[in-house]
Amino acid sequence: MQRAAALVRRGCGPRTPSSWGRSQSSAAAEASAVLKVRPERSRRERILTLESMNPQVKAVEYAVRGPIVLKAGEIELELQRGIKKPFTEVIRANIGDAQAMGQQPITFLRQVMALCTYPNLLDSPSFPEDAKKRARRILQACGGNSLGSYSASQGVNCIREDVAAYITRRDGGVPADPDNIYLTTGASDGISTILKILVSGGGKSRTGVMIPIPQYPLYSAVISELDAIQVNYYLDEENCWALNVNELRRAVQEAKDHCDPKVLCIINPGNPTGQVQSRKCIEDVIHFAWEEKLFLLADEVYQDNVYSPDCRFHSFKKVLYEMGPEYSSNVELASFHSTSKGYMGECGYRGGYMEVINLHPEIKGQLVKLLSVRLCPPVSGQAAMDIVVNPPVAGEESFEQFSRAHQMAPDMFYCMKLLEETGICVVPGSGFGQREGTYHFRMTILPPVEKLKTVLQKVKDFHINFLEKYA
Amino acid sequence: MQRAAALVRRGCGPRTPSSWGRSQSSAAAEASAVLKVRPERSRRERILTLESMNPQVKAVEYAVRGPIVLKAGEIELELQRGIKKPFTEVIRANIGDAQAMGQQPITFLRQVMALCTYPNLLDSPSFPEDAKKRARRILQACGGNSLGSYSASQGVNCIREDVAAYITRRDGGVPADPDNIYLTTGASDGISTILKILVSGGGKSRTGVMIPIPQYPLYSAVISELDAIQVNYYLDEENCWALNVNELRRAVQEAKDHCDPKVLCIINPGNPTGQVQSRKCIEDVIHFAWEEKLFLLADEVYQDNVYSPDCRFHSFKKVLYEMGPEYSSNVELASFHSTSKGYMGECGYRGGYMEVINLHPEIKGQLVKLLSVRLCPPVSGQAAMDIVVNPPVAGEESFEQFSRAHQMAPDMFYCMKLLEETGICVVPGSGFGQREGTYHFRMTILPPVEKLKTVLQKVKDFHINFLEKYA
Repeated sequence: MQRAAALVRRGCGPRTPSSWGRSQSSAAAEASAVLKVRPERSRRERILTLESMNPQVKAVEYAVRGPIVLKAGEIELELQRGIKKPFTEVIRANIGDAQAMGQQPITFLRQVMALCTYPNLLDSPSFPEDAKKRARRILQACGGNSLGSYSASQGVNCIREDVAAYITRRDGGVPADPDNIYLTTGASDGISTILKILVSGGGKSRTGVMIPIPQYPLYSAVISELDAIQVNYYLDEENCWALNVNELRRAVQEAKDHCDPKVLCIINPGNPTGQVQSRKCIEDVIHFAWEEKLFLLADEVYQDNVYSPDCRFHSFKKVLYEMGPEYSSNVELASFHSTSKGYMGECGYRGGYMEVINLHPEIKGQLVKLLSVRLCPPVSGQAAMDIVVNPPVAGEESFEQFSRAHQMAPDMFYCMKLLEETGICVVPGSGFGQREGTYHFRMTILPPVEKLKTVLQKVKDFHINFLEKYA
Repeated sequence: MQRAAALVRRGCGPRTPSSWGRSQSSAAAEASAVLKVRPERSRRERILTLESMNPQVKAVEYAVRGPIVLKAGEIELELQRGIKKPFTEVIRANIGDAQAMGQQPITFLRQVMALCTYPNLLDSPSFPEDAKKRARRILQACGGNSLGSYSASQGVNCIREDVAAYITRRDGGVPADPDNIYLTTGASDGISTILKILVSGGGKSRTGVMIPIPQYPLYSAVISELDAIQVNYYLDEENCWALNVNELRRAVQEAKDHCDPKVLCIINPGNPTGQVQSRKCIEDVIHFAWEEKLFLLADEVYQDNVYSPDCRFHSFKKVLYEMGPEYSSNVELASFHSTSKGYMGECGYRGGYMEVINLHPEIKGQLVKLLSVRLCPPVSGQAAMDIVVNPPVAGEESFEQFSRAHQMAPDMFYCMKLLEETGICVVPGSGFGQREGTYHFRMTILPPVEKLKTVLQKVKDFHINFLEKYA
């Protein structure tokens, strides 16, 4: 009892309420009387110190915003004050914050958000109808038609419906249920919430959580906060940071000596490594989780940030369903997405969602209860999430501008996707000139007839899928 | 190891990756082969169940959004479907959500938020200059001048400055330091964060957290999540739910048998009880915390919701400072405010702040680190907090409309405050008629000369203070 010892040392016994004055001067006089053995004002030992604080919190490390970043802030202030350095500005490449780096927000998203914020603007002719339509849909689902009301703890109903529809489109028709969607305060919130529910046991049966190394430090931080056991598996740097299931096996076997490995965290596309898992690799991981009875966490916040034409994002949810009912009915999966990454980069709104698969109904109740304690995620972030999953579509007023915001004209976008998904290389109509508002592509018909048949079938399949996804 | 037992029982040994198919049909065929002993699709025992989950989370109770509220949602759906009930609508009086109850948002706040959201509107003549000024100030302090960037984990600098200036005005000049202000995701986030840092120890030295009964259930929920020890002190129902320091003494003495009481939570004005602590009572509590070496948490989110003319809100911070340096240099205090209550009622934005006093510098570092893990509070909520603490002032274009939003004309507001703070009853000029845009009050000069001198001195002091606070 260090605190009690401090009290005794200075001889400050309990005082009755009558002995301390109401006015500042009398209280000050008394304080100096009490402390007369020391001429200078003395400070008692504090209650909350590095020694007395929560040791799990003390053990947390968070490099993304650690000492380097604090130092960067100091250097920026020094530069502002005119202190000379071998450089004139600090480039903050420590965090994925597109708008801080000068990326302009997507006009459509901000229009919808402004309309939701200040509904008087719904009468303004300077906002497009499709933006107004989105804003009305969101506001109608809010208490008192206002972003200022609390939402349901799980999130606004219609936004969860839009998220489910987005996932279904993204995954080529694998159904998503709005009841399995939980809107969150960024993806971090969802990840830490589900981990909080998962961790239990003591000693050798304490929950082990498998994470990639390198990892995004949210994972190690939350594991530390929860006093869970961190189980490292190493990504293969020699092989473009690929995930190797043999390494998962090694890690889980070793971990079983000192904990109960219960959770497997996957970051795909990787953060900080950027690798994109092949479909085969995802199947391997799902089978491994099934085999080892591990709860899967799939952090997929970078799903729209795949740059190599050789790579394609496959969601764990989709692959799980395609592996058949033994997997899709049994493997427990939570996957995460966010407004912060992709082409939107709306980090500040702290929007995100979690989709859960095969979660026990009683646990769903526990999850809602736990989320309820914090009332609800920011409703403005929920609205931002809605626009990320429900962007303008062809035929809507904002579609063209929005598509340009993808930094690609619609025909360029179509041809790029066709190439990426089928390997068929054609030329966008804009290279040849076309009437404004119409889009074409040009393809040669030189391949032999049999090959051409295959090519045309592929184009047809791609086209149907493309319309399903973007139209 | 229940999960391992489940595996053995069904005879599903590990399978090699080569044994499971890529296509949905082959995987389905295989699954039915594996499960042929049972004609219906079978489910393995789940990893995450009520038995296996985090027992601290299971123990959480959260009545504000518990079964009654879930039932309310069901009844609303039934009413929508036309099912007859002895009532036609559900009145949600379970939660303090003003806008869901039809209260209109404050125009000025939403104008600033819309301008921040969609800065093109800064060129629109339909927004007032003072709103544009606030929006520019906020945007200039945001990364990339955008609400879509992450902010510093502690919150946007200029907003913390505005909060500190607000606290200084509110507390009649007691200084507040922006470095002691942490912007949060609603007050709940601040409360649970500081509690998370405070809880430590095992067995009989586990941290005890004193909370009022009745309490707001966030406290019991977070205490349960953290596996801390809840120490109840009872408010005195016979005495308008007043807090009695003798009851605090009883509670802390009894608690010392089984835990280390280290934190005292106060809710003032009370939630759910609505009582407002007298200045004397606050002094008593601060002295008690000093004496017992308790870290004080002052939940002051209802500071603008004081309705009785006999009551006045005093902040713990102000009283602490007025009690002199022995208290103001030693008592560790965290106090909380929010955008959700008061006249703003902007619950959905999840804005809030925490002010810490006498926090050890090393602990401040720990606090920033812990906040960093979640990156930052929603920037739109931070902006809303800025407008709550930085409303239009006399002379600004929006001041009159904003004052009406207080549902009181400026002269009515002045006279009401004068009465509340000095007991002097005068009549607003509007009762007599006055030129538009000017404000007066009428007072009689019937009291004897000596009394009149005192009265005029009081009016003078009040007026200076009023201008300091609102001008």
